Amino acid sequence: MACKLHSTGAGTAPSCLSRVPVFSQLRPEEVELLHTVMRSLHFAKGEMIFQEGDRSDSLFVLSRGVIKLTKLEDNGKEHIIRLLFPGDFFGQFSLLQEKPHYANASAADDADICCIHRADFLEVLRRSPDTAARFMTALSAQLEEADSWAAVLTLLEADRRLAKMLLYFQHKSASSSSEFTLPVSKKELAGVIGATPETLSRKLGQLVSSGIAAVSGRKIIILKEQELRRLAGEA
Amino acid sequence: MACKLHSTGAGTAPSCLSRVPVFSQLRPEEVELLHTVMRSLHFAKGEMIFQEGDRSDSLFVLSRGVIKLTKLEDNGKEHIIRLLFPGDFFGQFSLLQEKPHYANASAADDADICCIHRADFLEVLRRSPDTAARFMTALSAQLEEADSWAAVLTLLEADRRLAKMLLYFQHKSASSSSEFTLPVSKKELAGVIGATPETLSRKLGQLVSSGIAAVSGRKIIILKEQELRRLAGEA
Repeated sequence: MACKLHSTGAGTAPSCLSRVPVFSQLRPEEVELLHTVMRSLHFAKGEMIFQEGDRSDSLFVLSRGVIKLTKLEDNGKEHIIRLLFPGDFFGQFSLLQEKPHYANASAADDADICCIHRADFLEVLRRSPDTAARFMTALSAQLEEADSWAAVLTLLEADRRLAKMLLYFQHKSASSSSEFTLPVSKKELAGVIGATPETLSRKLGQLVSSGIAAVSGRKIIILKEQELRRLAGEA
Repeated sequence: MACKLHSTGAGTAPSCLSRVPVFSQLRPEEVELLHTVMRSLHFAKGEMIFQEGDRSDSLFVLSRGVIKLTKLEDNGKEHIIRLLFPGDFFGQFSLLQEKPHYANASAADDADICCIHRADFLEVLRRSPDTAARFMTALSAQLEEADSWAAVLTLLEADRRLAKMLLYFQHKSASSSSEFTLPVSKKELAGVIGATPETLSRKLGQLVSSGIAAVSGRKIIILKEQELRRLAGEA
């Protein structure tokens, strides 16, 4: 997926600059510089942005929606590595290291993405060291996210992993309320937390029967956040 | 841990520049620039470099040894998030985002570390956009490592996680032979792959009895790499 091409739609990128935290403190001349080189793309739910093994010469920044980074296992099953939320970058691996992508990226939900072509990106870095520092900060924040994700996955107990992941999704959902929609299917969520679908179903059932959460399809309402935090080992 | 202070020893940093891949393609003027601002630190096995919640104003680059990134669980147990190998950066979170460290960093083995102070680092970025792009590439590579790590952790079967992790350690060990030393204790390895020590011990025993690996203390010899790869789901 190159930045010049587009999927469901493409346009200029004012929305990218306003929605993405890393760009929120740009000075007017930085905004000007990025405006000319960023494009806005729209992907419908399920659309593939790039595939493992592809090369691309663009940096992508998610401005709305959720992106799944996945790998195919040897048995042909899709395996979620990590989810990306608004403000997250992706594709920088292929761009900076000029290597094929090590994962697939697809839209878990309708997604708006800002992209910048390799040559333009490197030119921005050359012209604006402050913007370079900002991109570096954003990469560092992504690394922290990846580490938090790994910290959840090494927890021995499936109910702690589930509790942590629900709190993470709540935190990442645009709304600040206790109600949110799972960004992936329950079967995928089981894969994400390294549990079988049956274990996930049983553990979700326990959260419901103990009055900690209500579940309706992919909608989750956290009724007793303190108890969920205690279960996650945070309180 | 500030870059100005030192632990067991400190010196100038020619070794950092020669040992760390990200610095291997520097132009002479970039080497010159970094030489003046990087310091070399030595940490003995077990020494703490920084603690979760600390702030520091330095970027660390590992040039020799292994570093553990850990978090304390609510039950007081240390929990390994990820291991760092020569060439890996750490501490950039606190440096770039001016927030407390989200993990502890300690030497899993005697370690040589290059460090650069925040102000110097930002000055290097300002003066050399190429070096900035190189740092960004290195951060991106770290993110790929973190994602590979997470991809291992979500595998359902403990023997696949163990097989993957052994292949990863072999790849990361300085030697290119089939023999390497585990960078962490077996108990820690169990934590790393999200298994109980008993499960790890059983799975290691199976690798030995099937002639795939020989184990002596923390020394591992991979005797049948193809079979280990098949077990890991790679072949």
